[in-house]
Amino acid sequence: MFFLVGLGLFDNKDISLKGIETLKNVDKVYAEFFTSLLFGSSFESIEDLIGKKITVLDRTQVEEESVFLDEAEDADVALITGGDPLIATTHSDFLVECAKRGIDFQVIHGSSIISSAPAISGLQAYTFGKVTTIPFPDLEYNYFPKSPYIAIEENLKMNMHTLVLLDIQAHKDKYMTINEGLENLMTIKDNLDYEGMIQEDTLAVGIARVGSADNIVKAGYIRDLIDFDFGGPLHCIVIPSDLHIVEAEYLVEVAGAPREILDDL
Amino acid sequence: MFFLVGLGLFDNKDISLKGIETLKNVDKVYAEFFTSLLFGSSFESIEDLIGKKITVLDRTQVEEESVFLDEAEDADVALITGGDPLIATTHSDFLVECAKRGIDFQVIHGSSIISSAPAISGLQAYTFGKVTTIPFPDLEYNYFPKSPYIAIEENLKMNMHTLVLLDIQAHKDKYMTINEGLENLMTIKDNLDYEGMIQEDTLAVGIARVGSADNIVKAGYIRDLIDFDFGGPLHCIVIPSDLHIVEAEYLVEVAGAPREILDDL
Repeated sequence: MFFLVGLGLFDNKDISLKGIETLKNVDKVYAEFFTSLLFGSSFESIEDLIGKKITVLDRTQVEEESVFLDEAEDADVALITGGDPLIATTHSDFLVECAKRGIDFQVIHGSSIISSAPAISGLQAYTFGKVTTIPFPDLEYNYFPKSPYIAIEENLKMNMHTLVLLDIQAHKDKYMTINEGLENLMTIKDNLDYEGMIQEDTLAVGIARVGSADNIVKAGYIRDLIDFDFGGPLHCIVIPSDLHIVEAEYLVEVAGAPREILDDL
Repeated sequence: MFFLVGLGLFDNKDISLKGIETLKNVDKVYAEFFTSLLFGSSFESIEDLIGKKITVLDRTQVEEESVFLDEAEDADVALITGGDPLIATTHSDFLVECAKRGIDFQVIHGSSIISSAPAISGLQAYTFGKVTTIPFPDLEYNYFPKSPYIAIEENLKMNMHTLVLLDIQAHKDKYMTINEGLENLMTIKDNLDYEGMIQEDTLAVGIARVGSADNIVKAGYIRDLIDFDFGGPLHCIVIPSDLHIVEAEYLVEVAGAPREILDDL
């Protein structure tokens, strides 16, 4: 049997009891850490918790060889991943493969940036539009893909908030910061041939280390957040659309937004 | 200090290790179960896990009296809730109140239907639009609010999938089923003064009991799913937009969608 186990948001204590029990009971545990990572814990701390060694795979071993699925035909095998499984396409392919080969499978969910970042931003889950990601620019060609800027604008036009994820290149230990993400958006804005909807005076929420005790949720105008020190990864951004009074009050009281945003309501 | 602790998706084993440790360490634990509920576990099983009694509050006690916040001024107090905290507005109000009164707080996240249902549907998280909820109709006045139907249509027009949550009236032990939800959408469609985009031959995914070992993910045309037995609560629905080949293959192989959907790609 094949178990796809999510480790949750931040450290080795974000996994569920169900996840821990599963990892203790299976014959073998594999990990892939290129799609998502835990920041708050060493790898070994997870091994200590479950009392067995974890075999770490690189991208080729996961995507092309899938040795863990061969083993799952005769044994109980788990693959662990950061966050909630199946957010990355790779994982849904494994379940397709299991279904085709008649291997039973179970998914053990975990806390995910997809629900937790909107939640901790204080904005209503129902008023978020499409999620977008800011990729690292190609500096050699001075190329900044416009797609995230356009995605936020499309949400704003329909009065929807946007969760903006920031690029991760885990193999290079590179994690885009909120500051870099906002600078990116401003560079894209400067190169538009029209007046973009996201400007230096647009309200944004920077969210760092969701799931950790020292997480930061800081709301402010882009021109102010762009130099704010949010500390270590992972970072993400929320760009709010029109605010309900309850949302605005949260941003002011909990996330330190300028009190004047309450005047505009 | 005030701790807002999410219990996760389904039963008493979906809480994180961090959540359990917090509940063991605090002086008092409160629960409110009117915004969200655990289905797979008795209430007592959580008390057994944390080794202390939980005080259950009704809506008035939670929203108006907030006795737990008074106590949090001098002691460590936790409020537990199903899923991930802060998805309901009530919770963000507590954090605003904490901020105003100078009470430290921490949020312990949990797995949430908002990320896990899209994940287990096999559709890409990046291609979901706004979430919507089908409310129970007012049968006395034969009133079926059109808003969820319109929300799905708006997403479809922009080629985005929709997560459709189903109404809960926990105090009456009423949980809308996938079948009722789909019947609702078809009733709304029949009463439109135009040709609606969601019809009996529209593809849908019914998802029951996410987070449990016997969860069901079943894709098919609405006319077929409308009579399918999904078992006990909680249920939700995903209405896919145009499918990527990887998504379609998942729906066919893992979720039992008609193989002919692959022909249309």
